[in-house]
Amino acid sequence: MRVAITGAAGFLGRKLAGRLAATGRLGRTPITGMTLVDVVMPAAPQGAPFPVTCRAGDIAAPGGADHLADAGTGAVFHLAAVVSAQAEADFDLGWRVNLDGTRAVLEACRRAGSRPRLVFTSSVASYSGGQAAVIADDQRPIPANSYGAQKAAGELLVHDHARKGHVDGVSLRLPTIVVRPGRPNRAASSFASSILREPLIGEEAHLPVPEDFALWIASPRAATDWLIHAATMDTAPLGLDRGLNPPGLTVTVREMLAALEAVGGHAAMRLVSRVEDPDVAAIVGAWPARFDAARAKALGFREHEGIEAVVRAFVEDDLAETRALRG
Amino acid sequence: MRVAITGAAGFLGRKLAGRLAATGRLGRTPITGMTLVDVVMPAAPQGAPFPVTCRAGDIAAPGGADHLADAGTGAVFHLAAVVSAQAEADFDLGWRVNLDGTRAVLEACRRAGSRPRLVFTSSVASYSGGQAAVIADDQRPIPANSYGAQKAAGELLVHDHARKGHVDGVSLRLPTIVVRPGRPNRAASSFASSILREPLIGEEAHLPVPEDFALWIASPRAATDWLIHAATMDTAPLGLDRGLNPPGLTVTVREMLAALEAVGGHAAMRLVSRVEDPDVAAIVGAWPARFDAARAKALGFREHEGIEAVVRAFVEDDLAETRALRG
Repeated sequence: MRVAITGAAGFLGRKLAGRLAATGRLGRTPITGMTLVDVVMPAAPQGAPFPVTCRAGDIAAPGGADHLADAGTGAVFHLAAVVSAQAEADFDLGWRVNLDGTRAVLEACRRAGSRPRLVFTSSVASYSGGQAAVIADDQRPIPANSYGAQKAAGELLVHDHARKGHVDGVSLRLPTIVVRPGRPNRAASSFASSILREPLIGEEAHLPVPEDFALWIASPRAATDWLIHAATMDTAPLGLDRGLNPPGLTVTVREMLAALEAVGGHAAMRLVSRVEDPDVAAIVGAWPARFDAARAKALGFREHEGIEAVVRAFVEDDLAETRALRG
Repeated sequence: MRVAITGAAGFLGRKLAGRLAATGRLGRTPITGMTLVDVVMPAAPQGAPFPVTCRAGDIAAPGGADHLADAGTGAVFHLAAVVSAQAEADFDLGWRVNLDGTRAVLEACRRAGSRPRLVFTSSVASYSGGQAAVIADDQRPIPANSYGAQKAAGELLVHDHARKGHVDGVSLRLPTIVVRPGRPNRAASSFASSILREPLIGEEAHLPVPEDFALWIASPRAATDWLIHAATMDTAPLGLDRGLNPPGLTVTVREMLAALEAVGGHAAMRLVSRVEDPDVAAIVGAWPARFDAARAKALGFREHEGIEAVVRAFVEDDLAETRALRG
């Protein structure tokens, strides 16, 4: 089968493409070709045993999603999005890319006629309630930011296209990804990776929340595993409800800093300093830190590793590249 | 202030416009003008003490919502929609009118700059779970039809535009309206009015569900009262959550037929016969019949009258017009 990935130049898209290139298959099915799309030209993964088509383009522009799927397309991973702080700063851009773009991807799948598995990355940002909340699987999303509203609306599109048989859709409400490799980005949650990543390459990092602030996180390894599970699982048990809260990890900033000290030493931990950022605190303060995730566990989404394992995996997988990127 | 109503040629839009024309005000504020929009030319209400502008047009067409709001607009009632069975039959039309149309209305309000109260009619169809379900206020919508998905997505748009201060938005998840005056329409729930309305004008009606089938309904009087309450209530207690399940009435078909007999006599009741309709049964069978509605009651939405009062009100308010319409 053919596979497509939007947002393929992002770190999660690159990890996913790399994993698929390494295994050459999705589940038991050999991959015969891969299409990678992003606003900047994505790189083909090294050593892919199948042809890879890379495209730079805006999926929300007219015709921009047309080349994503054809009759041989078996799976589409729709990861492309305008991230939270940017969507909050630019209302029109966020709705255009995160809603219209998702709609264009779904319409491309529908036109392809192959009823591909469509894995959509929704987000914890579709919920509010903050530190006190524990989110059950049937909890109504009440987003506290535009990004979350766009992702929740995108889920409804995936849901309805799936019900109509245009795609075999699964929406994963991804937690904040920690440790995100590379540079800080415009996600409000960017600090959650910065306070681990920057000290490990010897740079300072700013902490905009108190140490007892808890986050619902997922490692790049866990998120990649979940994306592949979402693309290969039996979707019949999902019934009408195509959205899932995968089993992330609840972790406090204090626990993150302790893991940083365990892996990078005391000097690394001392590079983190508390700097107020009311805009960021307002956005991430609304995100719940605790989810039940019972349904995803029952459906075979793997449990999350501990925070120290997350930090060690960053050192193994991403430290060299992150350091090189900073030149 | 100026007031606008979309879907103003529909029965609920006409009742609402008539009520506002009769009182000349919305809450304590005098109405200085009214804009009525629908795909067919709406009629101005009789005896309105303010100028009424009537327009025929498609709100989802380019520029189609531009004239809805200006700097003097204080309230917009967005009732226009492609109804459930039609949205299910025509996927593209449903998403275009029910999502893009809602977006165009919100953008028109945003451009007007007056932060009008925006009352959006969402729907019980955004939920599934069927006869067994009791829907709490914080229940996640899992629509079993496109109309419900479009309404739930519309709520997210209202929610985000409200959070950003473009409108002061309230979404009301209206129950099935019974007794709907006029002719049967393409709503899957059309039978729920037909089995009361047709016998009262001496015509036969078909019942596509068993007599113990329960529905969550609202009378035209209750729905109109709720719309006006939604337009005049203090929205501060809503916080982020702009969607409400108003306090409808759970009623079985058997109770409806008993009310029909009490008001129209045994001969009227005998005009109803059971005729299978799997398409309609599949859609309405997924709609829950029981809601908690605690939040709306606490926010002052009035409790619903009993089913016999609903049937008597139809005779008082709508029987003559319905009979005239049938020629």
